[in-house]
Amino acid sequence: MTEGIDHRLRGRWAPHGAHQDKLPARSLRWLSTRIGASEVASPGTEGEPGEPSPTTLPTAAQADLTEILGHERLTTDPAARLGRAGGLSYLDLLHQRGFGELAVPDAIALPSDAEQVQRVLECCVRHDIAVVPFGGGTSVVGGVSALRGGKAAVLALDLVGLDQLHSVDPVSRLAVFGAGTRALAAERMLRAHGLTLGHVPQSAERASIGGFAATRSAGQASSGYGRFEDMVAGLRLATPRGPWRLGVAPASAAGPDLRALALGSEGTLGVLTEVTLRVRPLPTVERYEGFVLDGWTRGQEAVRALAQAGCLAEVTRLSDSDETNVSFALRGGMRTAALRGYLRARGVREPNLLVLGWHAGSRAELARRRAVTLGVLRRFRPVRLGTAAGEAWRRGRFGGPRQRDVLLDAGVCVETLETAGFWSGLDRLRDAVRTALRTELTGHGRAPLIMCHISHAYETGASLYFTVLVPRAHGDELGQWQRAKAAACAAIAGWSDPDVGEPLGTITHHHAVGTDHAPYLEAEIGALGVDVLRQLKHTLDPTGILNPGKLLPDA
Amino acid sequence: MTEGIDHRLRGRWAPHGAHQDKLPARSLRWLSTRIGASEVASPGTEGEPGEPSPTTLPTAAQADLTEILGHERLTTDPAARLGRAGGLSYLDLLHQRGFGELAVPDAIALPSDAEQVQRVLECCVRHDIAVVPFGGGTSVVGGVSALRGGKAAVLALDLVGLDQLHSVDPVSRLAVFGAGTRALAAERMLRAHGLTLGHVPQSAERASIGGFAATRSAGQASSGYGRFEDMVAGLRLATPRGPWRLGVAPASAAGPDLRALALGSEGTLGVLTEVTLRVRPLPTVERYEGFVLDGWTRGQEAVRALAQAGCLAEVTRLSDSDETNVSFALRGGMRTAALRGYLRARGVREPNLLVLGWHAGSRAELARRRAVTLGVLRRFRPVRLGTAAGEAWRRGRFGGPRQRDVLLDAGVCVETLETAGFWSGLDRLRDAVRTALRTELTGHGRAPLIMCHISHAYETGASLYFTVLVPRAHGDELGQWQRAKAAACAAIAGWSDPDVGEPLGTITHHHAVGTDHAPYLEAEIGALGVDVLRQLKHTLDPTGILNPGKLLPDA
Repeated sequence: MTEGIDHRLRGRWAPHGAHQDKLPARSLRWLSTRIGASEVASPGTEGEPGEPSPTTLPTAAQADLTEILGHERLTTDPAARLGRAGGLSYLDLLHQRGFGELAVPDAIALPSDAEQVQRVLECCVRHDIAVVPFGGGTSVVGGVSALRGGKAAVLALDLVGLDQLHSVDPVSRLAVFGAGTRALAAERMLRAHGLTLGHVPQSAERASIGGFAATRSAGQASSGYGRFEDMVAGLRLATPRGPWRLGVAPASAAGPDLRALALGSEGTLGVLTEVTLRVRPLPTVERYEGFVLDGWTRGQEAVRALAQAGCLAEVTRLSDSDETNVSFALRGGMRTAALRGYLRARGVREPNLLVLGWHAGSRAELARRRAVTLGVLRRFRPVRLGTAAGEAWRRGRFGGPRQRDVLLDAGVCVETLETAGFWSGLDRLRDAVRTALRTELTGHGRAPLIMCHISHAYETGASLYFTVLVPRAHGDELGQWQRAKAAACAAIAGWSDPDVGEPLGTITHHHAVGTDHAPYLEAEIGALGVDVLRQLKHTLDPTGILNPGKLLPDA
Repeated sequence: MTEGIDHRLRGRWAPHGAHQDKLPARSLRWLSTRIGASEVASPGTEGEPGEPSPTTLPTAAQADLTEILGHERLTTDPAARLGRAGGLSYLDLLHQRGFGELAVPDAIALPSDAEQVQRVLECCVRHDIAVVPFGGGTSVVGGVSALRGGKAAVLALDLVGLDQLHSVDPVSRLAVFGAGTRALAAERMLRAHGLTLGHVPQSAERASIGGFAATRSAGQASSGYGRFEDMVAGLRLATPRGPWRLGVAPASAAGPDLRALALGSEGTLGVLTEVTLRVRPLPTVERYEGFVLDGWTRGQEAVRALAQAGCLAEVTRLSDSDETNVSFALRGGMRTAALRGYLRARGVREPNLLVLGWHAGSRAELARRRAVTLGVLRRFRPVRLGTAAGEAWRRGRFGGPRQRDVLLDAGVCVETLETAGFWSGLDRLRDAVRTALRTELTGHGRAPLIMCHISHAYETGASLYFTVLVPRAHGDELGQWQRAKAAACAAIAGWSDPDVGEPLGTITHHHAVGTDHAPYLEAEIGALGVDVLRQLKHTLDPTGILNPGKLLPDA
């Protein structure tokens, strides 16, 4: 392979100066006690997945694809294929460690522009080859699994070559990006214009603009910058029926908003090639600070009050006491004891950490907005922890995926899941998910640690994000989590309580459907909704080559 | 017909205490001079449309519908049928005055609940009868024309019976309304809970919740309360394939947002029966005030600055100098002269009126927000006109439709059209529309008065709303406006300039597609987009009974 094209094997998260790659030994010991294992297991015997099966890409297809892309931009190299085999869910990580079956694409196409993407799709239609659009590969719901959907071969269509900032319109505050542009690269390019997108999910180091749009991502600062779909002014897709452009105005009443079909389509209806995004001036002042509220109810009410008063900080994030206590404990030593004493002295029995992160154009703006927010917050009697607690969160904000690898090495099953619901049903939703997880994961000496936070708040409701830690069930690694996840999803879908005819929340607030949530989609959008999606797919992708097995339960 | 069911003939707008029903004689004289007619014609000889053709509703269908609805809730009364014949566009008003062909429904169904709506649809599928969902009947784009789409008969499905507030969730700030609820009735019902929807389009006195959702309406206070689609948390529809419920959470990543398909579907995919809306606390303080900015460029830049700084007032509305001068002139007499002198003394050559209307929860909140906004506004050197100018706008805010009737009586062709574009292209869009209208409407001693305002501003762009007055072309009343509207639409679609391959803006920002904009939809969403809508309709409405001839150019 020639230089300049990135065929690298994706593996673990690269070390990053600012982030904590390893949990200290004392933290591991503490966690071990906390989740009820006499000791957390030492790293297992698992290693790497084996060599993938030989490619089944037909020779004629390979020749045609090579003619479109050149030799450089098509590869069947085993390492490159393994590198695009799946995403980053706990099950994916287990697959990469040799558990279960790893679905590996037969070849990787790395087109350099939208026209090549279009031609690759048309070629794959002719040869009836499945196509998995591939951005940063950070899906945690099976969204980039190399499923072939009954086709003879499956191609991973890696969009990393579409990584340009095509244009900036500073007057309209719009920027047009190639869909393969990585989030941090996009921010670097915008910074040169004094602009920012402000979309910073935990996957930001790797995830792509196209991936964000295809999955309806929400970033950690969504309370200020909006969900990714709110930022999308226009889109270009390559589809088996030809290129498609959408979005000509800031708002429209010209029929249903078809951009909403591309957003969240997860590569099943077309391949995003270009995204026009609303951008904002780079903030000149940032401030992250922590508060503690006593009890989940009061914490949740405080976030609701901020959301309904329209004075959320860009980052607004409330951890329940389980999550708060873990984050305090992992600080370790004297600092934790002192903090607990400080909070007890102020009457806090169940500390719920609230992190507020402000981005502003000036100190005056920050002061003004912050005063309004603290004014609303006051009646919930917050205990201020100052900027140290806020900065601690900010430093660790991308650390989750790295700590997950470390915990996996130490024999811990660690995974997250998320949902959202309206405020009046949020407690019921949270209780249902926690009960389902606890019931499923308890036993055999194991007691799961279930943490929860709100990271995205709206006037009408909020997201709930759960992090689960439990000792791995040796010999049943995959089944352990599959059953727990299924129980949680059934609870969200409203199936665990016969008196409930409707979902308690959405099956996913910002992780998309992929393969993992597909069985629960019908509960949310109805059989008619599923049929609408199916017919829509048939219209745009008549032979069903696009990302088979994702989004639709039976596609 | 039994009492209690509203079969009334819709005609002119009912008088309303606060509104100006008649233009004073001096205003008519002034307008007459302004639009280049030696005198504005006296009321024409036109009157009422004739008796409609006899109903073609098959007897068997009538019997089945009667069984579902009862005798009270099905009528073929000629007056009731005429009352649901079309909407309120200038062409509709001409039709009602006996010009051209008036499409009249064969019968009116007035279901009392969602289940009856569903059964009526299923009955119409069995008998292959076209169905036109009918809310307030305020469409200005042909959206409720009683077209039969090749069917033997057409039924107007009047949703006025679905007029209840089903539930209020004050914690989540959600309210569930029957789709036929009128906007002002909804506000009255919410007021009892201390809540408001804040959706106040010019049609608010008659238009319905379902109509707002079906057409993606935007109200006069959209800068504060959002577009109607932003308020919709959930929907229930009746479709030929069965009932459909959408929306279980404040936000979701569970595939494409299918609510966006129902919003803007204009009754072609299903009939909205219930809408769950985000509501807000009733404001306790309101303040409307006027400013003058010198020149359109500066005015537009000021609105852009407010939108991009996130400090728009709930109502933010900029009139160009043509619209401003007319509104000043219609005040009449000394007040106008004094005002002109006042502005001249402050260096204003081209007055552009900016109305800002604030809704706040307290005087302190109002003061704080207003200070931020005025701080941004300052660098555009606004001349303050105080609250009198703001209140004058507020008093007249629903007057447009009434004045239109008066002007029509006086022989004036008066109509509006609207679009939206990104900021950097807004001047080009405005120029293109004005040029198209002026070119088409000038001649035979006529010089059109073309006024323009921005009433909906976003970070990335704004709406443009044009009001056109020109002496009616006697003997060519329909053609005169049809040609002008076609020229304006072609300009928006980018057809008038061969160098432009793309639309300059959207064909409609808040009036929907109906029949009038259908020919321009493909320019905006592509042939693929039109096919997607067509297949979507085929999925939900396989026999094509729903609102034929609307939205899709060929449906």
